[in-house]
Amino acid sequence: MSSIAPEAPLYIKVHTADNVAIIVNTGGLPEGTVFPCGLALTEHVPQGHKVALTDLPQGEAIIRYGEIIGYAVRPITQGSWIEESLVTLPTPPELEELPLATKVPAPLPPLAGCTFEGFRNADGSAGTKNLLGIITSVQCVTGVVNYAVNKIKTELLPKYPNVDDVVAVNHNYGCGVAINAPEAVVPIRTIRNLALHPNFGGQVMVVGLGCEKLLPEQVIPGQDKSSILVLQEQQGFSKMVDAILAMAEARLLQLNQRRRVTCPVSDLVIGLQCGGSDAFSGVTANPAVGYAADLLVRAGATVMFSEVTEVRDAIHLLTPRAVNEEVGRALLREMKYYDNYLALGQADRSANPAPGNKKGGLANVVEKALGSIAKSGSSAIDGVLSPGEKASQKGLIYAATPASDFICGTLQLASGIHLQVFTTGRGTPYGLAMAPVIKVATRNALAEQWPDIMDVNAGRIATGEATIEEVGWEIFRLLLEVASGRKQTWADHWGIHNDLCLFNPAPVT
Amino acid sequence: MSSIAPEAPLYIKVHTADNVAIIVNTGGLPEGTVFPCGLALTEHVPQGHKVALTDLPQGEAIIRYGEIIGYAVRPITQGSWIEESLVTLPTPPELEELPLATKVPAPLPPLAGCTFEGFRNADGSAGTKNLLGIITSVQCVTGVVNYAVNKIKTELLPKYPNVDDVVAVNHNYGCGVAINAPEAVVPIRTIRNLALHPNFGGQVMVVGLGCEKLLPEQVIPGQDKSSILVLQEQQGFSKMVDAILAMAEARLLQLNQRRRVTCPVSDLVIGLQCGGSDAFSGVTANPAVGYAADLLVRAGATVMFSEVTEVRDAIHLLTPRAVNEEVGRALLREMKYYDNYLALGQADRSANPAPGNKKGGLANVVEKALGSIAKSGSSAIDGVLSPGEKASQKGLIYAATPASDFICGTLQLASGIHLQVFTTGRGTPYGLAMAPVIKVATRNALAEQWPDIMDVNAGRIATGEATIEEVGWEIFRLLLEVASGRKQTWADHWGIHNDLCLFNPAPVT
Ligand SMILES: [Ca+2]
Ligand SMILES: [Ca+2]
Ligand SMILES: [Ca+2]
Ligand SMILES: [Ca+2]
Ligand SMILES: [Ca+2]
Repeated sequence: MSSIAPEAPLYIKVHTADNVAIIVNTGGLPEGTVFPCGLALTEHVPQGHKVALTDLPQGEAIIRYGEIIGYAVRPITQGSWIEESLVTLPTPPELEELPLATKVPAPLPPLAGCTFEGFRNADGSAGTKNLLGIITSVQCVTGVVNYAVNKIKTELLPKYPNVDDVVAVNHNYGCGVAINAPEAVVPIRTIRNLALHPNFGGQVMVVGLGCEKLLPEQVIPGQDKSSILVLQEQQGFSKMVDAILAMAEARLLQLNQRRRVTCPVSDLVIGLQCGGSDAFSGVTANPAVGYAADLLVRAGATVMFSEVTEVRDAIHLLTPRAVNEEVGRALLREMKYYDNYLALGQADRSANPAPGNKKGGLANVVEKALGSIAKSGSSAIDGVLSPGEKASQKGLIYAATPASDFICGTLQLASGIHLQVFTTGRGTPYGLAMAPVIKVATRNALAEQWPDIMDVNAGRIATGEATIEEVGWEIFRLLLEVASGRKQTWADHWGIHNDLCLFNPAPVT
Repeated sequence: MSSIAPEAPLYIKVHTADNVAIIVNTGGLPEGTVFPCGLALTEHVPQGHKVALTDLPQGEAIIRYGEIIGYAVRPITQGSWIEESLVTLPTPPELEELPLATKVPAPLPPLAGCTFEGFRNADGSAGTKNLLGIITSVQCVTGVVNYAVNKIKTELLPKYPNVDDVVAVNHNYGCGVAINAPEAVVPIRTIRNLALHPNFGGQVMVVGLGCEKLLPEQVIPGQDKSSILVLQEQQGFSKMVDAILAMAEARLLQLNQRRRVTCPVSDLVIGLQCGGSDAFSGVTANPAVGYAADLLVRAGATVMFSEVTEVRDAIHLLTPRAVNEEVGRALLREMKYYDNYLALGQADRSANPAPGNKKGGLANVVEKALGSIAKSGSSAIDGVLSPGEKASQKGLIYAATPASDFICGTLQLASGIHLQVFTTGRGTPYGLAMAPVIKVATRNALAEQWPDIMDVNAGRIATGEATIEEVGWEIFRLLLEVASGRKQTWADHWGIHNDLCLFNPAPVT
């Protein structure tokens, strides 16, 4: 039994209007458990799962976060387990009828004087890492590029100690794709914007094959052709590798000159994501991240939240927060886009959540969404990005992406994030090579089980050991330490980096 | 100037009915060149590009391979370059009206006594490599698995010298996907069949996360749960890595017992593919591969050709070769499936060919298809597989896949290929970790330029230095050497291996 797990039975009710609460105790609580308030469990309720706080007649609205997450399939008695099959899925908010910019939050008080140590780029942006990025225009070159990257890491990188790493921007695009299909714009702009990532310091190089559909010149439009290496112009494999190493070394020389300088927090672009969520996500880690998001917005940074399928069912809570009607309409545009995309594939939002989410106590996508949007904090939504677009403004931004951890990560990198804050309840070892990922556990048990993977434990909020504000500040401070290179995330410590994965809504050929 | 490039001007006319020919000479031929037949070029014609053998009035059918590849946009005079913009795209064959099994080729004479040295598996199949395969059920685990695989390669593999390599079957599926969408069946069966690959010797292991949508048990249905490792059940990162290494070592011990034994060629499953094609593909490498395919079919092997978008415009030449009407209808089913798939994404077959194909002289997908199907040789088409299905019969099979080199490769591996023969005109360093890839150059110039990448030079056919039959036999013999582990392909020599890439026609979420 863990030292920090509560001995006393404990539940969390999020909102005064809620008629359900979730069980905090690790392992759940047995039938007969009596809470200090007098509530008695009529059956075993697993950790993170919902207990009925009152008798609920059949058809009664089940309320969590002060919102309807579904309706009772049959009468549910007080103190019993509300298992997912007892909750019907409500219809999603009708997009046409939503209020836009009707409850715009007042600007939060500025948070002055916060800085981090970053790498200043020529274009005015700053980086949190000093990476040599090798972009590919087509998957065909991957085998050669990976061979060359290994050689660069062992033979060249030790000579350039100020360069943190070499990252091959591999992907499955570039050829064998419908490059003229309307949706091809998404993967193409994603690759382009990945090449512009601030952690690459403007020292791009692109390796192409020579006969692909996505031309290397299209990957870095307007750039010097001397940054492009075409394998079909080389005399065999060894010469290809030599050429990549020569081009890489010229850039390593430049990158090695870079030094960290003090930068305002307003230079930071931070991505927020959740993955492997559970019922605690929405009451511990996500609200704490939301608090940190507010701190970042107050300090002038850019903060983006994403994951359309986890926002769709809570969109009625977001459109009123849009800073103006135009931003509100942009939110609706992204929701409609994804509704259409899923319908084309004969799928719908019920494809989310995953089985692990359900095991973690999330009955359906509505409950998941209500918890997911807590990451966005409380400020006005200042802008909206379509998948893979690059951020060009400060404040809180909704960057529309699939919820898939690796696709969302790839798209947020394209949008320019310097660092991602990632909350997880079930647990994932997720990491990105291009930017640090701070992983926040929603439960004490996960933080204890994975001490060498999880960076922050927000589970202490559930047990009353810390407040949302305290963990929010902890995330904010850690984020500045990591952005400054003074602390390393666990994922970077081990080199746990997921492959990039493009969002390609267009056909392959 | 290369020693084996022809000095004399040379063109290739494939079929007696053709009114165009392609220029053989490296660098093309200048205006004023006069061929022995008296034809004079009215302008420079690049290598591999078409020259008009007669005057072609506007609207005249342009004929290559004895088939109409398009119509003249304007009058074209004898001796001039038929650049792609001068050729209109004909409408594709109407699927409903095609003759099925009307010209079934007679069985070819058996080729007895051909064997290779393979690894015999418990299920009766044989392998061409002895690999430890580590299957993943979800992309989330990739970072951990790659870390563990590096450790296995350096710390464990040297102790098991009979094991050729350790291969992580990484992919972008498993979560964040519409797992109940109708088309999800394609990626799921692909992953399942990859786990069954004969080169893994039946010693599968699956690493899963624990909350993904694609459960590890679904990846290896019916198998012992002791082959599954779930990261969420482990106590942190180091323990995860230890657990993967322990599971891997148990399998390395078993795999290390395997020895090559003499197997009939009928145990082989060979995949055929082309990528980076040019106008020579259809007259040198592909017909030579087609000859080798006939030899393999005669020896009782399974041979599969693929790439729907490159077959679609020549489907009228294939349906008559179907061994019976059922197989003919299955061919049509796969063409219709892809027509619909492309139409849903507002794309069509004109998305193929790639710019490099066009530079290589291929005016459109019709001309590309006529050259592409030459790989299938001359035998009856005995069966059809939908994308990712496992082959269970001998003979010539049409395994429907996208033309994308890495997707076709992944799907053919799922279908069980032991080895792929890959033809290329423009040149690609393509390779697969799970099975050897023999790369065949269509042009002398490519073979000379990439001597440490290309395994066979079929360009000698264009210059008259070798016949289709000779190169066909050369491919067949090399294939048996490589399958037996006596020779290594260049891709395996360098370790040039492309990432697997699933075909997922369903949405992500
Ligand atoms: Ca999420
Ligand atoms: Ca996610
Ligand atoms: Ca091809
Ligand atoms: Ca191909
Ligand atoms: Ca990879």
